[in-house]
Amino acid sequence: MRIVIDAMGGDKAPQCNVDGAVMAVKELGYEVTLVGDEKAVTGLLSAQDYPKDKIKVVNASQAIGMEEPAALSVRRKRDSSIVKAVDLLKSDGHDAFVSAGNTGAVVCAGTLSLRLLEGVDRPGIAVIIPTLDKPCMVIDVGANIDPKPLHLLQYGIMGDAYSKHILGKKEPTIGLLNIGEESTKGTDFVKECHTMLSDSRLNFIGNIEPKQVYQGAADVVVCDGFVGNVFLKVTEGVADAASQLVKRELKNSNFITKLGAALTLPAFRKIKRKLDATEYGGAPLLGIDGRVIICHGSSNAKAIKNAIKVAGEYVDHHVNMHIIEELQSF
Amino acid sequence: MRIVIDAMGGDKAPQCNVDGAVMAVKELGYEVTLVGDEKAVTGLLSAQDYPKDKIKVVNASQAIGMEEPAALSVRRKRDSSIVKAVDLLKSDGHDAFVSAGNTGAVVCAGTLSLRLLEGVDRPGIAVIIPTLDKPCMVIDVGANIDPKPLHLLQYGIMGDAYSKHILGKKEPTIGLLNIGEESTKGTDFVKECHTMLSDSRLNFIGNIEPKQVYQGAADVVVCDGFVGNVFLKVTEGVADAASQLVKRELKNSNFITKLGAALTLPAFRKIKRKLDATEYGGAPLLGIDGRVIICHGSSNAKAIKNAIKVAGEYVDHHVNMHIIEELQSF
Repeated sequence: MRIVIDAMGGDKAPQCNVDGAVMAVKELGYEVTLVGDEKAVTGLLSAQDYPKDKIKVVNASQAIGMEEPAALSVRRKRDSSIVKAVDLLKSDGHDAFVSAGNTGAVVCAGTLSLRLLEGVDRPGIAVIIPTLDKPCMVIDVGANIDPKPLHLLQYGIMGDAYSKHILGKKEPTIGLLNIGEESTKGTDFVKECHTMLSDSRLNFIGNIEPKQVYQGAADVVVCDGFVGNVFLKVTEGVADAASQLVKRELKNSNFITKLGAALTLPAFRKIKRKLDATEYGGAPLLGIDGRVIICHGSSNAKAIKNAIKVAGEYVDHHVNMHIIEELQSF
Repeated sequence: MRIVIDAMGGDKAPQCNVDGAVMAVKELGYEVTLVGDEKAVTGLLSAQDYPKDKIKVVNASQAIGMEEPAALSVRRKRDSSIVKAVDLLKSDGHDAFVSAGNTGAVVCAGTLSLRLLEGVDRPGIAVIIPTLDKPCMVIDVGANIDPKPLHLLQYGIMGDAYSKHILGKKEPTIGLLNIGEESTKGTDFVKECHTMLSDSRLNFIGNIEPKQVYQGAADVVVCDGFVGNVFLKVTEGVADAASQLVKRELKNSNFITKLGAALTLPAFRKIKRKLDATEYGGAPLLGIDGRVIICHGSSNAKAIKNAIKVAGEYVDHHVNMHIIEELQSF
């Protein structure tokens, strides 16, 4: 398994990527190519202990910032770590690409250079979120913010394939994110999506409200990329604010309450592990003719390592082949 | 102050409305008219102790269910509690209307019967959410799911007026909910909204990501009603799921952890109070020529009482007059 990594991607780059790569090499036995500032990356690597033949470094003289306009920077920065990594994925026998960099730029470079799978009109970012009972795949969370209903049908089909072949669901339930359960609810766009999904051969269970998603009501939830991105970021925002609030409150509390908090720590650690996004690693960019895994900008080394693991599973389970098969059968 | 209440609205109707009305009468000294199934409401009232001249009951032979199609049911069920209550508000000297019933039906009945304020093209539901540092008003959360950019500008102006005159902010900051901070981010719709808000005389601080909303980055956040509704429901969903997860984890934990949990209860109760949506009462439906306060379907008596309080403040502070003034000055 050969994975190429955008060494310059993410808020904690290149450190998180170098450390994540070393963890992946040791734990998974993969070969990794780090693309980025050669001097910096080599410097960080020299402090690490790992099988030297398993990690290669390829220099990229540019990096695309997290907030740079996607299409423009991909066009202009041909020697950026993202563009070069995608080129390596395409031409140099690498199996998958992992990046915690500018999401728009990764989507853009991936789509332009690798092209879409036959039968796919737009790629979608599929993120796996923990719910009360089981993980749920939400697609799209930001690749395609102004989609057509057909794109959401394709997301449903791709999510179905992924859910079957990677998550091991027999007959995944597919829901449509909406603000009410009845088929008459929502915008014209959502209603058209509802009709299209109902008419398909997917195991479509209808509209799903955000609250139900967290109760584990569906295996796959499809939505437009704008709404999906809001969904994801509200989740993060609420979780962050709640945890800050708890810390603040406990800091100002008396000895007894603090003692109580210390005693409950094991339970909260368990919950934290359950909800920890880094456990799920990265989000696959479904629909392109290649394997690209997108990580959160705030990823740490463990998240990068887990994203590399997700990339490996994507390859091992021939997800793209299954997606093509499913699309052809529809 | 005379408030009319939809006695049949909400999951816990009519009990929550009767109890909330009695609380409001006793605590606030308001007069309340309960509209709904006279027999049921009178029966519940008879068990209560309150100044009898302060609560009137008006019979409504119909009720609009929480999931019925809004426009159709308002047209057909002329003797429903919602339609009759709005009529009372319009013609019978009542100051405001409070309902925990079918939101779409309340918006529809309110708009059709009371009409819009001059200069307003669509009403918007303004909900106040707790953030880390201060309450934030999000508008719209579901009245208008397919708006034009002009509507969001009007929401900004109305939110500005409400924030100034009810929440006491001197120069409220207005943000636009988006999936990135830069003005180039988001759909064409959001970009048009950004231009329009930038060109206005509002204290517009640009795009706000969902995460920043919870950090208290803006006093007023505007968005389309579909996205706003998702925003609200994801918040509820995450909070619900997290609290269920904590309960489940603690139930399965050992004596020491349970003891710890008992000791931390005071801190968690404080946090719960801070986040308790029932404390903020209802959400004003801004933009109509009347005062309508919409409550969550799951409202309890306390939430109804607090919504009645919000209705009173809406009247006392002449919010609609200020909205008209602000709109005219733009």
